[in-house]
Amino acid sequence: MDKSSLIGVIIAVVCMGLVFVEASHGHLAMFLSVEGLLMVGGGSISVCFIAMPMEKIKCVPGYMKRFMFQKGRSAVEVVQAMATLGEKARRDGILALEPEIEKLQTTDPFLASGLRMAVDGVDPEGIEATLRMEVMAMQERHKAGKKFFDLIKLYGPGYGLVGTLVGQVGMFGNLASADIGEMGHALATAVTATMYGAIIANAIAGPIGDKLALRSSDEILGREMMLQGILSIQAGDNPRVTLDRMMAFIPVASRAKLQMAA
Amino acid sequence: MDKSSLIGVIIAVVCMGLVFVEASHGHLAMFLSVEGLLMVGGGSISVCFIAMPMEKIKCVPGYMKRFMFQKGRSAVEVVQAMATLGEKARRDGILALEPEIEKLQTTDPFLASGLRMAVDGVDPEGIEATLRMEVMAMQERHKAGKKFFDLIKLYGPGYGLVGTLVGQVGMFGNLASADIGEMGHALATAVTATMYGAIIANAIAGPIGDKLALRSSDEILGREMMLQGILSIQAGDNPRVTLDRMMAFIPVASRAKLQMAA
Amino acid sequence: MDKSSLIGVIIAVVCMGLVFVEASHGHLAMFLSVEGLLMVGGGSISVCFIAMPMEKIKCVPGYMKRFMFQKGRSAVEVVQAMATLGEKARRDGILALEPEIEKLQTTDPFLASGLRMAVDGVDPEGIEATLRMEVMAMQERHKAGKKFFDLIKLYGPGYGLVGTLVGQVGMFGNLASADIGEMGHALATAVTATMYGAIIANAIAGPIGDKLALRSSDEILGREMMLQGILSIQAGDNPRVTLDRMMAFIPVASRAKLQMAA
Amino acid sequence: MDKSSLIGVIIAVVCMGLVFVEASHGHLAMFLSVEGLLMVGGGSISVCFIAMPMEKIKCVPGYMKRFMFQKGRSAVEVVQAMATLGEKARRDGILALEPEIEKLQTTDPFLASGLRMAVDGVDPEGIEATLRMEVMAMQERHKAGKKFFDLIKLYGPGYGLVGTLVGQVGMFGNLASADIGEMGHALATAVTATMYGAIIANAIAGPIGDKLALRSSDEILGREMMLQGILSIQAGDNPRVTLDRMMAFIPVASRAKLQMAA
Amino acid sequence: MDKSSLIGVIIAVVCMGLVFVEASHGHLAMFLSVEGLLMVGGGSISVCFIAMPMEKIKCVPGYMKRFMFQKGRSAVEVVQAMATLGEKARRDGILALEPEIEKLQTTDPFLASGLRMAVDGVDPEGIEATLRMEVMAMQERHKAGKKFFDLIKLYGPGYGLVGTLVGQVGMFGNLASADIGEMGHALATAVTATMYGAIIANAIAGPIGDKLALRSSDEILGREMMLQGILSIQAGDNPRVTLDRMMAFIPVASRAKLQMAA
Repeated sequence: MDKSSLIGVIIAVVCMGLVFVEASHGHLAMFLSVEGLLMVGGGSISVCFIAMPMEKIKCVPGYMKRFMFQKGRSAVEVVQAMATLGEKARRDGILALEPEIEKLQTTDPFLASGLRMAVDGVDPEGIEATLRMEVMAMQERHKAGKKFFDLIKLYGPGYGLVGTLVGQVGMFGNLASADIGEMGHALATAVTATMYGAIIANAIAGPIGDKLALRSSDEILGREMMLQGILSIQAGDNPRVTLDRMMAFIPVASRAKLQMAA
Repeated sequence: MDKSSLIGVIIAVVCMGLVFVEASHGHLAMFLSVEGLLMVGGGSISVCFIAMPMEKIKCVPGYMKRFMFQKGRSAVEVVQAMATLGEKARRDGILALEPEIEKLQTTDPFLASGLRMAVDGVDPEGIEATLRMEVMAMQERHKAGKKFFDLIKLYGPGYGLVGTLVGQVGMFGNLASADIGEMGHALATAVTATMYGAIIANAIAGPIGDKLALRSSDEILGREMMLQGILSIQAGDNPRVTLDRMMAFIPVASRAKLQMAA
Repeated sequence: MDKSSLIGVIIAVVCMGLVFVEASHGHLAMFLSVEGLLMVGGGSISVCFIAMPMEKIKCVPGYMKRFMFQKGRSAVEVVQAMATLGEKARRDGILALEPEIEKLQTTDPFLASGLRMAVDGVDPEGIEATLRMEVMAMQERHKAGKKFFDLIKLYGPGYGLVGTLVGQVGMFGNLASADIGEMGHALATAVTATMYGAIIANAIAGPIGDKLALRSSDEILGREMMLQGILSIQAGDNPRVTLDRMMAFIPVASRAKLQMAA
Repeated sequence: MDKSSLIGVIIAVVCMGLVFVEASHGHLAMFLSVEGLLMVGGGSISVCFIAMPMEKIKCVPGYMKRFMFQKGRSAVEVVQAMATLGEKARRDGILALEPEIEKLQTTDPFLASGLRMAVDGVDPEGIEATLRMEVMAMQERHKAGKKFFDLIKLYGPGYGLVGTLVGQVGMFGNLASADIGEMGHALATAVTATMYGAIIANAIAGPIGDKLALRSSDEILGREMMLQGILSIQAGDNPRVTLDRMMAFIPVASRAKLQMAA
Repeated sequence: MDKSSLIGVIIAVVCMGLVFVEASHGHLAMFLSVEGLLMVGGGSISVCFIAMPMEKIKCVPGYMKRFMFQKGRSAVEVVQAMATLGEKARRDGILALEPEIEKLQTTDPFLASGLRMAVDGVDPEGIEATLRMEVMAMQERHKAGKKFFDLIKLYGPGYGLVGTLVGQVGMFGNLASADIGEMGHALATAVTATMYGAIIANAIAGPIGDKLALRSSDEILGREMMLQGILSIQAGDNPRVTLDRMMAFIPVASRAKLQMAA
């Protein structure tokens, strides 16, 4: 899990845990409601199944793993890698990149396939068209991942509301015969469903979806940089010029380090 | 019905059924309210009739069927079909596609009409203009289908709120003379309308609309692929290059299978 | 009134009427609140006057009439008309359209002025520029009409809320001295304002605005078809080709009929 | 103040006044709450100061004046003015516009500076670039004015909610020791803050912002017409053609009048 | 801190302070709730950590400082600076800008690097591409800063709602055994969480985010002006023409001053 997400999850768990314990004077079971879980959990899952095609649902565990473990290459690393490759191509000829491509095949297939085309002498328009379509397709896949969490964020609270209303109807229907303690329990159970809906939307699905979106645009930016780098390597441009242009996307603090290295 | 929608509907029905039974201690009649049904059901239908022209309303049963039974061609199948057609045209000449077109006439009129134009020697600009207009018109039709469910999702809860407010006005107006049991029943009935509105929006119209939107963009993508394929068949391009480019839209897992087949 | 709107209005009136009678046990006067009418009705009207310039407000009765009585030309009729005109121009020369233009002058000034320019030999760019500006201006006028209903949909419930809050302040301020019957009546009156706001937004202004928007885009599409048709008539194109291209926008069911007629 | 805004304000004041008097049985002081005013009024103002830079806040009194007194030139007047100028330039040569420019200097600096450039023989691209930048800058200034009212519309109700919650916390905290009359007053005061927020958003800031937006787009349209007119005057086009094209933006009712005059 | 933000913060603090004191009759501790702070404060922070990558979170203190202390160059200053540089380049040749570039290196690296390229004779397309990429990257960084406050504005109230619901569940669960004073305190504590959420969104994160957005677009506009200015200096244009065009973005009041100075 990347460090900031881990920290965020720990903060959320600690804060909510303390509040739960405090509000229930330690009787945490008070916050457990099977009806609420069925409504919000089952409802959210049912919405995802109804709204998304099977093949996209199958990718969801992959997105979850992606959210938790993948780190992605930072812009700094991409610029560095492109600069190294550019230097090598300029010094030893573009064919000298062959062994690099072999190594990249498994770690970064996008970069590898782009360089392969450059080495094979495919014309720049062809390289750009193929790689851009690859980027577009990646964007589509990311959107499908984000959609899953967006659906939960949108419909989870809706199902929570349904759960609360169902509970209230049940309670109001027995208003005459109920004593106040029973009524309190019924109300607590009813409100729990809305609470689950608010938690699933605000503490879980919402921030995960936001992170996936930020990561997606970072990756697209990184691939765009690679594309520019590959084209400029093939054209035999001075790698310094390309490097300078990409530098704009590097935070100022990291720039000095990079320029020293270059 | 496609498998994931079916699973989703079953999950929703089971979860909500359990909660309903539990909350009413088995007296499910408690959740039946003629006023609520008239308000939310009648209201949603009236909004659709007021907002949409007759000819579009007539298409709604078709959308429902479409949601339940149609499977659509997956991107993998489209790529495979285009590759097969491309191979054939390259080997035996473009006229060899005539019998294929006959067969496609009923199963995929879009592809058939595009290939027909290619075989007839219509110029590429003409083919592209005609097919793109066809795609645009399809998109318009899909939007009209989605609009129906969007209207229900938007106005259903609104009518539910009206139902609840009407019930509350009735109840408050008789506050002095009512005993608590009567008042409880009145409140339960009033809340039921909001509950119906929340269910129709979150469990029914919302997810169906989302699925139609996802399917629509899948179909547009598929047609875009066919268009590119037809143009490249007419130009006599190497079908491998086209195939490679389309491959970007195929999930990685399915790619190996395809390349083996090709 | 077009048929589907009429049906929608009847459904809404019947459903809401039944619920009102049922909830008030026949005492419909219970739902009448002068304060609510002043707040929601007066407030919505005041917002429209504050937000829209006088000359646009004057057009509102026209929009209402438009919503109720105008039927608009369907895409099928437009395609048919353009096909007939195209056939005639091809057979008898473009000047043979003169008498048609006379007839169209009152029923369809847009088409008439476009054909007039074509017959007068205005260059295609000039025709396109003039007609497109006409379409853009029509779109602006439609937006102004939709704006009126959007304002009511947006601010009606807001004013309803104000009415309810005013009523609640009045009620809470007299909480000590009031008996429960009085309080109930005060609450009922307060809630009525929110109810009026919900009704005006969900049952009236919302769906009317949606219908105007759908009609507007239909009309723009129809005019776009006319524009294409006029240009292709002037260019002396084969009317079949134009017809085929427009066919995309005709529902499948109507296509066979059209092709038979052509 | 333009007539329709004035009418709208009067309607709002009368309707709300009647409801206030009725709901409080004449004790209007009931609706006065210093806490509510501090919260909603002070809060809205503080948000504007925090969110907008000083130089833009200084322009706010100007926007208010603009909302109340400025009438703006209607499209009809713009078309008329451009037609007159076009006629004159065609009859007496473009230099004959010099005295007109003098007169326009104070009433319409935009038109004056455009005509000045045309008379001075600046090339059309230069005129268009300069005037379009002027239009863009005007649009920016309008956006800043609308922003002010949008901020109030957005954050006013938020601060109203804070006020109500503060009041409720105060009330609930003293629940044990309070008699019902006190509690009623506390509740009334608390609700007043939400009421102020709803009024400031729905009756004041919302409609004013909408009117500014409509006026802004009208002015941009007018300036676009002037720009086209100036370019066609410089090109020596027949003013009738330009007039005809602009006619599209004139409501049908006003067209006959204009054409008679021309 | 820029003056208007400072004034806004003071107004907010004074108004809210007065209301807090008034509503609690001086017992401000009533509004302190550790649960609320944990929920809204901890929750908001956890969302930011979950949703944003570490490297962007590290920039947040910078954004805060930026909000409080940075003043930014006004459009007037930019125009003035560009006019001075343009005059100098025209009088003494472009190489005369060398010493100016030295001075700008630390205060405005963007302008310095652009002028450096102009002096070095980089072709205009190259200058524009490099500077525009720099502007785009700046825009990306600003978006990340705004994202932080948007997340708090969006999820703060959500966590506040969770806090209130948790409190209500706790309270309702003990409804039978609680006396009214206890219940009041429990309710007050529960409501406090929603209040914190409303305050953090409406009084803090919302307006700060709006200000950052406004500043961002101001800075982008300023850089766009610099870019145009640099290109026109390199082209040897008359600085007056450039100045005139930029003048459009200067408020009318400041124009006279500038023209006097020029």
